[in-house]
Amino acid sequence: MASPSPVAPLDQEELAQALAALPAWEHDPSRAALYRRVVKPDFPAAMAFMVQVGFAAERLDHHPEWSNVYNRVDIWLTTHDAGGISTRDVTLAGIIDSLA
Amino acid sequence: MASPSPVAPLDQEELAQALAALPAWEHDPSRAALYRRVVKPDFPAAMAFMVQVGFAAERLDHHPEWSNVYNRVDIWLTTHDAGGISTRDVTLAGIIDSLA
Repeated sequence: MASPSPVAPLDQEELAQALAALPAWEHDPSRAALYRRVVKPDFPAAMAFMVQVGFAAERLDHHPEWSNVYNRVDIWLTTHDAGGISTRDVTLAGIIDSLA
Repeated sequence: MASPSPVAPLDQEELAQALAALPAWEHDPSRAALYRRVVKPDFPAAMAFMVQVGFAAERLDHHPEWSNVYNRVDIWLTTHDAGGISTRDVTLAGIIDSLA
């Protein structure tokens, strides 16, 4: 039986490349995470955005850590199994950008 | 024309009474807020709960400050117009309890 492929954290060069391809995101070293803020016109729009991201996250089985205050959503992506940022976070970040 | 009724923060005794009536909540002085954590079985259940609270909050025109990580929702209620905890927060806390 094949075991599931391990999740490795991105190395420094891979992280730099990922950030170059995701200009809305920054590296938050304090949380070993990708971070971005999304601002919507109002609270219902912010909630609708979160629900869309939520369905994508559940399909990927990879979930954001996020906070909402009215029309603002702060999002951190990290992979606990990898102890840092992995390709899973890069994939979810791209999907979030397409929904933001 | 009547002006809208002002929003006053709860005084110490009113806050103590509110907390006694809301045993799932505690006072977070660092945020001048009521705080509680809600834990659901999984991420979709946490999102469904947030959507339900979201509709109630929008109807009240009073919105939570909250964070979600997987099945966990941390909720702070405060009234910026009052500079602290007001009856609006107590009302929303009760609704959140009924949905949690």
